[in-house]
Formats: sequence, structure tokens, C-alpha cells
Amino acid sequence: MLSPELLKELHQLLPGERLYSDPADCYAYAYDNSRKIFPPDVVVFPLTSEEVQAIVLLSNKYKTPLTPRGRGTGTAGGCLPEHGGIELSLERMLRIVKIDPANRVIVAEPGVLNQSVQDAAHPHGFFWPPDPSSAMYSSIGGNIATSAGGPHAVKYGTTRDHVLGLKAVTGRGEIIKTGCYTTKGVVGYDLTRLLVGSEGTLAVITEATLKLTALPQATGGVVAHFHDTASCAAAIVAIMALPQLPSAVEFLDQGSLNLIRGRFPDMLPRDSDAMLMIEVDGSLRDIAESSAAILTVCKNNGLLSAEQTNDTATLWKTRKALSPLLRDIAPKKINEDVVVPVNALPEFLYKIAQLCASFKITNINFGHAGNGNIHVNLLINPDNKDESLRAEQCLNDIFDLVIYLNGTLSGEHGIGREKRPYVSKEIDSTTLKLMKDIKELFDPNNILNPGKLFP
Amino acid sequence: MLSPELLKELHQLLPGERLYSDPADCYAYAYDNSRKIFPPDVVVFPLTSEEVQAIVLLSNKYKTPLTPRGRGTGTAGGCLPEHGGIELSLERMLRIVKIDPANRVIVAEPGVLNQSVQDAAHPHGFFWPPDPSSAMYSSIGGNIATSAGGPHAVKYGTTRDHVLGLKAVTGRGEIIKTGCYTTKGVVGYDLTRLLVGSEGTLAVITEATLKLTALPQATGGVVAHFHDTASCAAAIVAIMALPQLPSAVEFLDQGSLNLIRGRFPDMLPRDSDAMLMIEVDGSLRDIAESSAAILTVCKNNGLLSAEQTNDTATLWKTRKALSPLLRDIAPKKINEDVVVPVNALPEFLYKIAQLCASFKITNINFGHAGNGNIHVNLLINPDNKDESLRAEQCLNDIFDLVIYLNGTLSGEHGIGREKRPYVSKEIDSTTLKLMKDIKELFDPNNILNPGKLFP
Repeated sequence: MLSPELLKELHQLLPGERLYSDPADCYAYAYDNSRKIFPPDVVVFPLTSEEVQAIVLLSNKYKTPLTPRGRGTGTAGGCLPEHGGIELSLERMLRIVKIDPANRVIVAEPGVLNQSVQDAAHPHGFFWPPDPSSAMYSSIGGNIATSAGGPHAVKYGTTRDHVLGLKAVTGRGEIIKTGCYTTKGVVGYDLTRLLVGSEGTLAVITEATLKLTALPQATGGVVAHFHDTASCAAAIVAIMALPQLPSAVEFLDQGSLNLIRGRFPDMLPRDSDAMLMIEVDGSLRDIAESSAAILTVCKNNGLLSAEQTNDTATLWKTRKALSPLLRDIAPKKINEDVVVPVNALPEFLYKIAQLCASFKITNINFGHAGNGNIHVNLLINPDNKDESLRAEQCLNDIFDLVIYLNGTLSGEHGIGREKRPYVSKEIDSTTLKLMKDIKELFDPNNILNPGKLFP
Repeated sequence: MLSPELLKELHQLLPGERLYSDPADCYAYAYDNSRKIFPPDVVVFPLTSEEVQAIVLLSNKYKTPLTPRGRGTGTAGGCLPEHGGIELSLERMLRIVKIDPANRVIVAEPGVLNQSVQDAAHPHGFFWPPDPSSAMYSSIGGNIATSAGGPHAVKYGTTRDHVLGLKAVTGRGEIIKTGCYTTKGVVGYDLTRLLVGSEGTLAVITEATLKLTALPQATGGVVAHFHDTASCAAAIVAIMALPQLPSAVEFLDQGSLNLIRGRFPDMLPRDSDAMLMIEVDGSLRDIAESSAAILTVCKNNGLLSAEQTNDTATLWKTRKALSPLLRDIAPKKINEDVVVPVNALPEFLYKIAQLCASFKITNINFGHAGNGNIHVNLLINPDNKDESLRAEQCLNDIFDLVIYLNGTLSGEHGIGREKRPYVSKEIDSTTLKLMKDIKELFDPNNILNPGKLFP
């Protein structure tokens, strides 16, 4: 598929150990957490912005698709080389260029792992807030490309709030520098945030200036169990109406709890049909005060139990138990990442149940309820064509419900290839056309991650 | 200057009380806080997005400049109709569309004053963090166009951190909707932040969805006086190395203090040559703890006195006294708004003094030191041609120093027309060209605020 001339030029550019063209070697770069498979024709491993630029220019010269890739942990298929061509793995651009605790800044290359940034920041009393569940393994380049979030976004925001500037190579093959090194700056257009979340369709990020945040003194919080989803949803709204933002508000519905019960029969109260894990951080006194306030507003007719703990492991035990169990059922679920305004959560959760009942689809919901960000999972047997079709229709109605409630189709996973068909539900055609024009401006030959993000 | 046909069409579009064409009426829209004067040929007052759209389309049809204007409080000349044409005053788009405390959101039209947003948010326990000194009078449309900051940005960030979504009319005359209503969302490119800070060159903002923040329980802090600038600058670095961010760190140099002494002889300690006002917010206990930590790190050889107070009026007394005095000397100052990394402040302040001495220019510095954001004022007699020339050269060297120290030319005032000649010092030609291409994409006929922002 790949032009032999292009392959020859790539070989001239890069040493053999930084170019894979054997299909067996390329296969490891054919998939991500969306579990779709699209093998690239070649995988390249640049080490510098200039090498990235040379590769982008070659892709333009040969009109060959170029798909940037971090560590392939995305769930939306954003890094999959759908149309073959060159997979641009940033995983070897691993330098932490600068640690500057006095200015609360770390400058790093895109392949640096989120966890490596945390490891570099912690000794100085700082952390970098984006905390996707893949943080141990995913790279900051991927985090930036998707504007990754995580449980702590309710207090700390998502990736776009924690990047000061970028160095990048546009689809035109130009090296640009965006943003600045300081916490304030209004010179020129905000290209930094235009690139954050653009899923590798506009430019390849080759260096990022990250803003650090002071580690909280301590964490603690409340675990609450409810008789029913409605009471739990009401408590979420009440918690989020308190002045101090919790550092996490994780929701688990009956389906999630039953999944845990299947593995750990004694972990949960028998009558619990919905659970909240609310983390607060700050001084021990702040934690005590906030926890008391949270306990108070959790007390509604559906409350089964609510307990405060300052032990983080206890707090997160149930939530952490859920993750591997979800992986077990992964081949049989459609995993969504929608967001609704927090006070629409009661209506949203109620109507999801109705929709799933009417389409006869088993459903599990959990997620970052403080942001209104719910991971809606539809469980299906993929071999059952009828069930798969009903699930698709159900999902479509769920997306319509999200838009009706003034929500958004993706809180943190992005569009990639998985959600393309639904983008027009949220973004009107005029605005979408403008976005496409921006894409064309940055990447006139449409070589950078072609076909992604747009319907 | 204005085509009679265009004027006729504008008259058909808008009732007489929403169109000024008498030069006397137009004159009030000819200036801003940059004190330059450029009278528009006509001033129009739309009330809806559709009217804005119709005006933009007419501007395109007649290739006539269109300059959006909030309340004209900018210092960079961003709203001045340099090339005449139509001044688009958003001041009558005054509706607060929605107050939604449960979701911490206010939706408002661009003419709504910053203070009106605060008044609407306060009863619910919230505020909107951007706090330019013009907040009582400036509009959120203008705040968004410039990504306004203020003293509290050190803890709360600037405007770009507090806007969830926008409705706007591009230079092409299209109505677009950007962002979303929720705190998380990654669907499509981040056009919201592309428009924030774009100074009316890409689109006219016609509605904004603002993210609210909980009011702090209380505020307090420390007032510290120093024998010399170097000791004060060292204290700033030490304060900003503490884990908890203060809610404001305001610096006043010897020149600022002397200005105050001229009016209020007894307000300040006689030996003070530099002053810090450090505000902290939170619970009274947090304030006490943070204040104690700040007092400790302020104790260096140059410290003259440092006192804690929980009385906000006392805390801000000196800083507030400075503002009207600066207005008195305003016709004779060049006011800049540069930012350097916090730990570069000692070197920066030392070298500014050297530069001003070598160019024989009187200089006053003050500002938001926690962000490294210093308002550098060069005092001149504008009638003295030689002095004016020396000030220009001095300013040029100050900007070079800022860039050398990895800073930025504007922290919160923007480029407008005042700083255009210097933009290329900060943004490389490739990145600048890309920004110009984006401008052309949004506004192919270059009718929206033409000539602004770019060198």
C-alpha cells in the first residue's frame, strides 16, 4: 500500500530501529482501548521536532495518512490508522526537558507518561491534575490530544486547564510555538487550547509546558449507600450545591454494585442499590468540615448508610474494585462518556433506565457524577444481531436525551472514530463547517489523522 | 467616508435611537483608556445575534470596517475604530439570560457588566473570578475579548478559565455556538478559547455561558514593607513557593509609594521602599495558617514590617489609594503590562531600574506580582520629544528583557493597537502567519477590527 519511494525516504531519515514495516511489528500499533484493529503500513519513532517535521513533510509529499499515537489507551479510536499509512509513535520522545518548581512548571516531550510527570512533581510538593484511569501508562501527549479528565476534574478541571504552552508540527509541516511560560498571557490567539483536545488532527505535539498544582495536605471523604438511584442522584445535586467543591464524586449504580458483588460478596451492604464515593481534600479540619456537610446533605429518605473516612484506600476500595471487573465484561459492552448538567442527573438516570427497559438492554452506569459525567455502559452479546441493533437504537436515544438535557456527548474520551456519527447532534452545521475549515487550514492535504473527529 | 447606501441599509435595519451618525454623538465612541482618538463614522446598537449578523453581512457587502466595543475600558486601543467605519456597541445587549446556581452557571449577553454578573451571582454564594480594575463598569463581552485578569488571577486564573461556551457571529457573518454548558466536554475543537482574547478580530460575541466559583468564606492577609526592591522581590518568590496560593499578591515599588505619600503623607512607614499586599482567602483558620506562613517567609534582611489583618479594607487601603493617583499622572505615562516567571522577578526589577537609569526615565512599577505580572510605567513629559524618544527606546529594551526572561508582553491588557509593533518579539513568524490565516478564515474580507493584534 505504502509507496516504495516513501518507505525509502523514511529509511533515509530514520535508523532501522526507529522504523517498523514488518506487519508483525506493526500489529502492536493497530489497536487501542476501542478494541478496533487497523494495522498501519509503517510505524516510525521520531526523537525530535525536526524529525516529526520531516515525517509530516514526507506524508504531504506522498499524500499518505499520518496518525499520531501516544500509548494507545484511548477508548474512542483516535490513534487508529484507519486508512493505513504511517503510524507516528511519540513514545520515544521521553525527555523531561525542565522541572521548575519555583514557577510550578514542567516542560516535557509528548511520550513522557502522566505518571512520570507526577513522579517528577511530587518531591517538590506538586502534581499535574489530569488523572485518566490510564495515568500510570498513558502519555501526556495523548492526555493533551484528548484533553483527558478523570475523577479529580470536578475540583481541578481537565487537561486544557493545565497546559501553558505547546510546541507542535502542523499538518502543513510547520513548527509552531503556542502559549507562554507564565500563568498569565494574552499575546495572540490561544492556539494552545485549540490544539488541546484536537485528537491529532491539526498538529503533532512535540513539547508541552505543563502547569503544576500544589499537592493537597490530605484527603478524606464519605462513602454513602442508597436504597435507590433517585435518592442517590438527589444527593449528588445537594453535594454539588455545597460551596466547597469535593475533589471527586464517583457514582456507582446497581449494575456496577452487582458486578462487584459477583466477585466480592461481602464488600457492599446488601440493600445498596446506588453508591457515592465523595473525596474531599485540604487540611484535616477542612476535610472534617466538608465531610460533615456532605453527610448532612446525603441524609434523604433513600439513604442507607453514610460513613466518613480519612483513609484514602478505604474510600476508593469499591471504585477501584470496579475497574478490572469492567474489563472482564468489556467485549460485551458499549461504553459511553456523556455529560449532563449536574441538576439534570436525576432525570437523566431515570430516563436511561426507562430507555434501556424499553429496548431490553442491560445497562450499567457509573462515573464522575460531580461533573455530571456518566459512563453509560450497554451490555450486549455482540453475536446477537438483534440485541446489537437494539443497543444501537438505545444509544442513539440516550445521545438525544443528553442533548435535550443541555449536555455533551463526550466529557473526556473524545470523538475519535467511535462517536463521529453523533457529532452533528451536538454541533450545528455552521460551527462544524468552521471547524472543518480550521482542519483544512492546519492540514490542507488531510494527512493528519484523516477522517477522525468529524462526522 | 461611509457609503450612503450602507448608511441607508443600516437605517432600514435599526430604529433611529439605535444608530448614531452625527459626529457629536459618535465622538463618545472614539476613545478608550489608551487615550487615543479615532471617531467612527457610525455607531450601531444591536439587540440580538441576528441583528449583529445582519450588520456583519452589511459590513462585508460594503467592505467597511466593523469594530466591536464593550464599554471602552481597554488600555490597548482594541475597540478603537482606527479606520473609521462602523462601531458596533454591544452595550445594549444587557440580558442575563439565565442564572443557574445548581450548575454554577450564568448565561449573559455581552453588554452585561462584570459587576452585574457579580450582583446576580452573590446571593447564591458565587462569583465570577475575572476582576479587572474596571469591573464595576466594564462588560463581560470586553472581558472575554481581552481575556481580562486582575489581582485575583494568581489563585483563580483569568477569563479564559471561566467561560464554558459562547454564541458569536464570525467575520463571515455566520452565527456559531462554541463549547458546552457543562464543566467537562471534548466534542470538537475548542473554539471558545480561540475566541477568548481574540480582541474582536475573529467574531462578535453575542452570548456567553460563564462558570461561577463559590465565594470564599473570608479573606485576610498580610501587609509587608521592605527597605528595598530586592528584598521585596525575594519575598515574592518565597511566598509563591508556599503550597497554598494566595488570592492576591500586589506589589508597589518606591515610585508607587512616593506617589501615595504625596497625597497621604502619613499612610506609609517612612523607610519603606517596596510593599507587598498579600491576600489569602478561605476559612479563618486557613487564613491564620497561611498568613503565619507568609509572615515567616517575608522575614529577610530587608523586611521593615509585616502585619497580619483580617480586615479587607485595611489590606487593600494602600493599593486602592494608588489607582486614582495613577490617573492623575496618566497623560504622562506609558503603561505596560508585562509578565515574567515569578522567580525571574528579582532580576527583572533590578534590570528595569538599570535600564530606566541609563535612559534617564522616571519609572513606577506595581502589579500582580504573584503571576509575575508587573505594570511598568514610564513617566514622561509628552511635549519633550527627546524624553519621549528615550522612553520608547527604554520600553523596547524592557520588552527584550521580558522575552529574554521567558516572559510575555501582555498579561491582561492585550495587544490592540498599542503593542502591535512588539508582537514579533514574542511570536515567531511561522506561528504568527498561522494566526493571520485563522483571522482570514474567520473574516475573509478583513472587516472585523482590521489591523488590530497583528504587527
